[in-house]
Amino acid sequence: MIDSYEIAFKQMKNEVNRILSTSPYIIREYTEHLAETSGKYIRGSALLICAEREDDTIHENGVKLAAAIEILHLATLVHDDVIDNSDLRRGGITLQKKYGKRTAVICGDYLMCVALKLVASASDKENYLDLEIPDYLSHICLGELNQHINNGNFDLTVYQYLKIIYGKTAALFEASFYAGAILSGTDEKVKKKYAKLGRYVGMIFQLTDDCMDFETTESVAKKPVQSDYEQNVITLPLIHAFRNLKHLRKKAEEEGITRKEINEGVWKAGGLNYTRAIAKKYYKKYQITLDELAITEDKRARLISVLDKAYRVF
Amino acid sequence: MIDSYEIAFKQMKNEVNRILSTSPYIIREYTEHLAETSGKYIRGSALLICAEREDDTIHENGVKLAAAIEILHLATLVHDDVIDNSDLRRGGITLQKKYGKRTAVICGDYLMCVALKLVASASDKENYLDLEIPDYLSHICLGELNQHINNGNFDLTVYQYLKIIYGKTAALFEASFYAGAILSGTDEKVKKKYAKLGRYVGMIFQLTDDCMDFETTESVAKKPVQSDYEQNVITLPLIHAFRNLKHLRKKAEEEGITRKEINEGVWKAGGLNYTRAIAKKYYKKYQITLDELAITEDKRARLISVLDKAYRVF
Repeated sequence: MIDSYEIAFKQMKNEVNRILSTSPYIIREYTEHLAETSGKYIRGSALLICAEREDDTIHENGVKLAAAIEILHLATLVHDDVIDNSDLRRGGITLQKKYGKRTAVICGDYLMCVALKLVASASDKENYLDLEIPDYLSHICLGELNQHINNGNFDLTVYQYLKIIYGKTAALFEASFYAGAILSGTDEKVKKKYAKLGRYVGMIFQLTDDCMDFETTESVAKKPVQSDYEQNVITLPLIHAFRNLKHLRKKAEEEGITRKEINEGVWKAGGLNYTRAIAKKYYKKYQITLDELAITEDKRARLISVLDKAYRVF
Repeated sequence: MIDSYEIAFKQMKNEVNRILSTSPYIIREYTEHLAETSGKYIRGSALLICAEREDDTIHENGVKLAAAIEILHLATLVHDDVIDNSDLRRGGITLQKKYGKRTAVICGDYLMCVALKLVASASDKENYLDLEIPDYLSHICLGELNQHINNGNFDLTVYQYLKIIYGKTAALFEASFYAGAILSGTDEKVKKKYAKLGRYVGMIFQLTDDCMDFETTESVAKKPVQSDYEQNVITLPLIHAFRNLKHLRKKAEEEGITRKEINEGVWKAGGLNYTRAIAKKYYKKYQITLDELAITEDKRARLISVLDKAYRVF
């Protein structure tokens, strides 16, 4: 048993850094590069928060599973960068830019294996069989594939878009919350509620991210902005603009549109407000589901802080 | 229980084809392409042979696990082709050539997930926990990485080479044999012997493959030949030639060598005979280990046929 969330969080960070800095020497340079540009551990942290028991302790498997989720997330980022051909991520240049696509593919595969190994190294594995990790992995792959297939699809519906971002982002959040709930030793019905919380927060996270691509500067976002459309990724603010401004939709298809026209169209159609409103719906669903949980005030406060991190109002 | 190996083999083939032809429509075209160019199911078949019990029956999980191994193998091929930049595989053009690198990366990820899902869908999962699938996956990734790092390394030692091909090829054979042994319900000591058989046959398979790159024509090999060196992959026949013909090693480093010089050097140094002799050592180890198993004559004959398929004497 680990005495508190704070201790578990520190252990998870150490575990992730240990893995990245002690990988086989042949890929150490790449994984150390990843460690240097590491993020906020929001997924691993959510897992640990959900794993908290009434007496504030956390099962020691929590650290392994939280580290696994973080490493798995890194693996998906590395492959995403290959697929999206991105140059910048978390304020650093991407692996695929620095070391080439081939190496990035192998490095992503390796990190995925390390994550699975971490899960496999948890004690009492039979308890985690119903985590259905492979199911979540499939959702993530399908989300990415779906996005790729719908690249440049000006007729993407809101429903299709939401399905894509579920796979691309929300599935891993759902898995984190669900795994935490399993560790907390709660019953089946409550576990499902945690899974829902994870799904909601994941959707909010991606919706907010898609707004950020229109709003902020590169130095704030620590990743390229004003770039989704340029990479043929059609997100909700623009879907909304296309639905409301038929001439913009037509021009995009026939002649192509400039970044200036996109930004003006999204602004005119209220695309960001529309997207924020959908995020707000998930925000409320999260609050309602949270109220149904019998948890300590501390745990509740932490779960609210995860929500607010995802919602990020600028 | 499945009544015989023949029935189980047919069911495995059907399962692989079902999976490839009923994948989500967004990637169906790619996976159907894979189904059309599908191989000889040597890994899945080995798993089923090892799973045979004394009364010739096979546990029904055998079909799922054998199909999983085959799909996992396809996943590694798809990523290998991205990494190696290959155009031809099993007589068909590669996914990465036909649909581009990005799609091949996602498709490989997806197939990997499907394979894990198949394993997860087997009944009595707790019996397969000691299969340590993630461990094998890591070996495979590391083998590939190791090869990549040693591209164009003229000083690759025999030991390094053997380590690379263990990860690249033999680890998956080992996993197939080991999983089969688990299904057959045999004890721990015997399971380890099956794992050894798998390792030996995998080593033979790759050593033979590396000879084929020098010997046969593309139409026989159903994949590019005379191409390893051109892709900077240094294999045992050439390692042997470099060790024995110092001027060739020197010229390779200083000016580069032509395919004609490589073939002549390998011939002169007896590189193929040397490689075949190492394969033969594994062949004998396989026979000795096989003799230690108390199995039916039928099962023995089948395990010999797997060995001969890997050894392929032309």
